[in-house]
Amino acid sequence: MIEDYRLDPNLAKIRIVLIETSHPGNIGAIARAMKNMGLSQLVLVNPKEFPSSVASARASSACDILDSAKVVNSIDEAIVGAKLVVGASARLRKVSWPQLDVRETAQLALQTVEDGEVALLFGREDSGLSNAEMDKCHYLAHIPSNPTYSSLNISQAVQVFAYECLMATQIETVHSKGYKHKLASADQLEGFYDHLYQALQDIEFLDPSKNARFMRRMRRLFNRTQLDVKEIDILRGILTAAQRKASGEKSE
Amino acid sequence: MIEDYRLDPNLAKIRIVLIETSHPGNIGAIARAMKNMGLSQLVLVNPKEFPSSVASARASSACDILDSAKVVNSIDEAIVGAKLVVGASARLRKVSWPQLDVRETAQLALQTVEDGEVALLFGREDSGLSNAEMDKCHYLAHIPSNPTYSSLNISQAVQVFAYECLMATQIETVHSKGYKHKLASADQLEGFYDHLYQALQDIEFLDPSKNARFMRRMRRLFNRTQLDVKEIDILRGILTAAQRKASGEKSE
Repeated sequence: MIEDYRLDPNLAKIRIVLIETSHPGNIGAIARAMKNMGLSQLVLVNPKEFPSSVASARASSACDILDSAKVVNSIDEAIVGAKLVVGASARLRKVSWPQLDVRETAQLALQTVEDGEVALLFGREDSGLSNAEMDKCHYLAHIPSNPTYSSLNISQAVQVFAYECLMATQIETVHSKGYKHKLASADQLEGFYDHLYQALQDIEFLDPSKNARFMRRMRRLFNRTQLDVKEIDILRGILTAAQRKASGEKSE
Repeated sequence: MIEDYRLDPNLAKIRIVLIETSHPGNIGAIARAMKNMGLSQLVLVNPKEFPSSVASARASSACDILDSAKVVNSIDEAIVGAKLVVGASARLRKVSWPQLDVRETAQLALQTVEDGEVALLFGREDSGLSNAEMDKCHYLAHIPSNPTYSSLNISQAVQVFAYECLMATQIETVHSKGYKHKLASADQLEGFYDHLYQALQDIEFLDPSKNARFMRRMRRLFNRTQLDVKEIDILRGILTAAQRKASGEKSE
């Protein structure tokens, strides 16, 4: 049990972006959920009704979050300056976006805020994010749930994301003391996966037609490892050495 | 990322007990949160208003949870038969009850349901659990939160507990069912490290004179990953492919 929670100031760099939210009660509940978990930046893209007395009532003592909320007209304004944009999506879609669960998202978010801001996008209550909005996302993130009833109320979904962000700050603390190197960023991880994918072909290990499933397995393995930047360097160094040998053989 | 969530039937043995809940909207939101996370047993101790159209509206498609909810007059009836009783408490009180956080609670609950039922108690919206009610609890459990604003809405609190219960089944699943593969044994890991050490020399990445420190780093990386037997096979397959390429070059 962790007895004392000091809020990590980096939580303030995580932006909750709500797109065309219909029910002001949800906006209020989200403000409370955010403040409970130490988040403070709320951005509303074309809310149906805001400000709203219903939102304020549900926000309870988190009206300061509503007061400082930014209301904008487009998703581009909402995500400006964010180094990482993640869209909450209830379903596992058959899409090409890389997908994370909420715990992985929080870990990635907390790594990213070392360098810049993070935006977590939540779509409409009834229809979620549009394809155009998903195009803006670096990852889609879902909350593990009952496969026959997976759609959470939006304020509950934000609660779970915010909770995992706070929990990730606790874990971060453990890591930053134990290891001396910073955890790798999402970009660095993607760079590693690209490199791995290429190297596995160069050494004729991987049949590209089977790559999707195989690379998902590799991601599962290395994502849970929480590689630091030095480890990424080393692993890529190994890949480069293997590629050099492989190309040497080809050139004969 | 885990792709397929099959609900662990043991989730049905976790009972959510709400004590004198004032707002029927909260009861409805809780029913939805429970069903989203695969919980099904709701027990209401003297609810102020139930059944309620407000509760039904907020429950959305989880009205079956409300329909099968048990309404009782006392906490003793609510916890009858439970092997583990945990009371949700926003504050860390200076009390003698053993305290857990919500993640630890979920892990304990999932261990306990192997043998019997678990009851998670949630007190009144304004005043929580009474001392007499806490006396019935084996543990008190809290949700890590902002120390200056720690009181979650009750439906949000149940959401976080239910989410952690589902996540606790996944962790079980990952280890026992989902991956289907057993964690690698110490022997298998040593075999992998030996193979890695040889392959890194074959591709001329590793200078053997520096091996001790480098291999310690590799061990630290892969040990914390908890490789399963299939992953060991795959990684060794990659090493073999790289070695084949390297020896091909040498043999010319």
